Amino acid sequence: MRTKLVSRTTASARFRDMVDDFATVSPARFAIAIFTGLVVVLTTLLALPISHVSGEQTSLTDAFFTAVSTICVTGLSVVDMATHWSTFGNVAILVGLQVGGIGVLTLASIMGLVVSRRLGLRTRLMAASDSNPSRIHHGPVSESQAIRLGEIGGLLATVALSALVIEIAVAILIFPRLLVAGFDGWSATWQSFYYAASAFTNTGFTPNADGLEPFKTDPWMLTVLALAVFLGSVGFPVIFALSRGWRNPRRLSVHVKLTLFTTVSLIVLGAIAIAVLEWNNTATIGADDAVSRPLTATFLSVMTRSGGFSPIDLSQANGSSLLVMDMLMFVGGGSASTAGGIKVTTLAVLFLAAFAEARGDEDMQVFSRRIPIDVLRLAVSVTLWGATIVAGATIFLLQLTKAPLDFVLFDVISAFGTSGLSTGLAEQLPDAGKIVLAATMWAGRVGTVTLAAALAAAQRRQLFKRPEERPIVG
Amino acid sequence: MRTKLVSRTTASARFRDMVDDFATVSPARFAIAIFTGLVVVLTTLLALPISHVSGEQTSLTDAFFTAVSTICVTGLSVVDMATHWSTFGNVAILVGLQVGGIGVLTLASIMGLVVSRRLGLRTRLMAASDSNPSRIHHGPVSESQAIRLGEIGGLLATVALSALVIEIAVAILIFPRLLVAGFDGWSATWQSFYYAASAFTNTGFTPNADGLEPFKTDPWMLTVLALAVFLGSVGFPVIFALSRGWRNPRRLSVHVKLTLFTTVSLIVLGAIAIAVLEWNNTATIGADDAVSRPLTATFLSVMTRSGGFSPIDLSQANGSSLLVMDMLMFVGGGSASTAGGIKVTTLAVLFLAAFAEARGDEDMQVFSRRIPIDVLRLAVSVTLWGATIVAGATIFLLQLTKAPLDFVLFDVISAFGTSGLSTGLAEQLPDAGKIVLAATMWAGRVGTVTLAAALAAAQRRQLFKRPEERPIVG
Ligand SMILES: [K+]
Ligand SMILES: [K+]
Repeated sequence: MRTKLVSRTTASARFRDMVDDFATVSPARFAIAIFTGLVVVLTTLLALPISHVSGEQTSLTDAFFTAVSTICVTGLSVVDMATHWSTFGNVAILVGLQVGGIGVLTLASIMGLVVSRRLGLRTRLMAASDSNPSRIHHGPVSESQAIRLGEIGGLLATVALSALVIEIAVAILIFPRLLVAGFDGWSATWQSFYYAASAFTNTGFTPNADGLEPFKTDPWMLTVLALAVFLGSVGFPVIFALSRGWRNPRRLSVHVKLTLFTTVSLIVLGAIAIAVLEWNNTATIGADDAVSRPLTATFLSVMTRSGGFSPIDLSQANGSSLLVMDMLMFVGGGSASTAGGIKVTTLAVLFLAAFAEARGDEDMQVFSRRIPIDVLRLAVSVTLWGATIVAGATIFLLQLTKAPLDFVLFDVISAFGTSGLSTGLAEQLPDAGKIVLAATMWAGRVGTVTLAAALAAAQRRQLFKRPEERPIVG
Repeated sequence: MRTKLVSRTTASARFRDMVDDFATVSPARFAIAIFTGLVVVLTTLLALPISHVSGEQTSLTDAFFTAVSTICVTGLSVVDMATHWSTFGNVAILVGLQVGGIGVLTLASIMGLVVSRRLGLRTRLMAASDSNPSRIHHGPVSESQAIRLGEIGGLLATVALSALVIEIAVAILIFPRLLVAGFDGWSATWQSFYYAASAFTNTGFTPNADGLEPFKTDPWMLTVLALAVFLGSVGFPVIFALSRGWRNPRRLSVHVKLTLFTTVSLIVLGAIAIAVLEWNNTATIGADDAVSRPLTATFLSVMTRSGGFSPIDLSQANGSSLLVMDMLMFVGGGSASTAGGIKVTTLAVLFLAAFAEARGDEDMQVFSRRIPIDVLRLAVSVTLWGATIVAGATIFLLQLTKAPLDFVLFDVISAFGTSGLSTGLAEQLPDAGKIVLAATMWAGRVGTVTLAAALAAAQRRQLFKRPEERPIVG
């Protein structure tokens, strides 16, 4: 299956090969090993007395929860993130969310690489038995989307550099606003970087005690943060394709077009729904002026992609808008992004299948391209996995806390989709509940990525075809 | 596409042909026309003063809601069904639920006929271009599942007769229990038939004022009702196949095996979950003895298939078990049955797709048969339709009532799945809410059946194949 074409001698090349081999042979174990290691390290660091602002030891459960929440860039918290941690603790968290955010980007890209490598092989096999001889020359993975093999080091560098450039740009945009808000130069610098990293990695932790409350109706701050969250949530393949191909939008790959179209549609529909449902709720946006209300609603809608900053008290929101946000958070962001959830392309493929069925089309089609049917099977698997995780965790926490479904479902889906918005339930959970919620974050972040890759990479030869039979459905 | 091979002369044959043609040309409009007609007639009858026990006029909304609930065999009520209606009203309701229950059975079978007819054509087309020449002789629809063409009259007669035989058997089993409970001969006769029809058609209305409360821990009554509900909910194709092929269970079609396996699995898992989650809840089953608790839990689990009888006050149940029942009710019963929901085979096909994906199999396989991939697309469409209806109605009712999500979601899914279990929310709804809930019942009952048939029947020739491209999902 794999061949070494050139024998390499440099140490870095040998290391790259080693990582490449491990990732290729068992991408799922690779991802799980890396993430578990990162969580253990950060839990240890945060449990040290030096991480606490007053030098006490943080309970192991709280340190573990915060570590998982940081590495999975979820942003749910069980302690007051602005006042609980010392500078040491804060730096550990900032490094952790950068490593977690960029790490998943890279991991997901490695997965994509493994999958695309297999696809390359598979496509050639399929194309050989295909009536169309031109198919062999351009496989199903388009140029802008395929990632060159054996370049994980280079990939990591590219991802890290892009992330850093974007975060510095965001920090520069935020910095003057914080100065105006009355912070001194040092605090404004620190906080603008913290905000930028927290936004681009879609974590959603805030460095200041009041969170986003002071900026609740500030168009500048909200717009900059929303843009950073949006960029992080569409995913690295999209950012990469856009940075290279924005001059020729028609030639962008289906993945890029589908991600952007679905993301923007969800943001617009979500914003309208939240604005309408909360318009007269004075405990959330109802007391603001007629310009701020749609602005805050749009910001919240973007945050469900999975930014997680909230300028309002979500426990005061109507059940109807909480449910709308549940649905948006469950979908999450783009594939190979810092966002969580089942991913926008997964939802899009499900709907494409329904449209094709309704029109009686033989194939799923979008943007003048045919989507192969096995992508639908993968989408169904990821969605079922997500629904099962969410249902299990919700039933467990409902029984444990006897809290209303509105709040439990919201915080569980927020954990699964690594959105990090919260009705405040997470903080009040007993230890067993915190651990289940941490497991949900882990399953939503690492599980979805590894599941998708493991499934897409699995392939078995079938020796014979069984007779076909058609059950009635619906 | 269609050819008349033999010219028929008898009037009944001509009528059969006419219905057949209408059903074939536009099965969706056929179903919608029939159901709308039935609802209008029953609404009119129930709005007459003669239907009310004290001769007053029932409000049009309540009459409409009850009519939809009856025709769609949902069993949700906004008035006290045992005391509100006169004998005239009760007979109208009893006839309505029989017509509704058997009507949908027949309609669904007609749909199945249309679909299987198209499949026959399509299979031949596919088989002609297939490498396996033996495929042409046995199509994807197995013998026990295929329904002969041009026999809608006979089909209706068979369905109605089977239903009547089963209902009489159930009534005979219930009658002595009602005598023992102290009812006089006339009441016991009337109520045993009402119970039998209400159970087999999966409606769930009770004729006596106390409902099932007096029989809450009665194994005989609960078992008989559960069996009647089970038979109604597995669907006519399964009953028919079992009555002909029970001596040779290995030769049953995949549809029959898949329906029975999934139904029994859901009942067992549901019973265990409800028993565990409610074990110590003294407001529901916690005060009963250790034999009654699993019995009631099993009964409730069967009722989510969509029987709708409840021996306990569901508003006192834990949020966790309500959510478990939500999931069970959303799935509902078998295809072409008196049950609602997305149907057990739909769920099974989704899971088969996930299993095939996890194992890397090229095809979905179960019971030594291959399931064609286009069945998955239909299953995804039906599930998305259901989820969209439920989400829309829930958001609307949450905003309208500001009631907790636990209750709103339960009653909406109960309406969609035509289960009819209720936390009591339905009764308290303002008129707008009642109408939305009635629309949800309608969409869940008529919508799902017609949608599945319309989708399965739609077919478009594609003149050219677009280039294939693969988005990243998950
Ligand atoms: K987040
Ligand atoms: K029912």
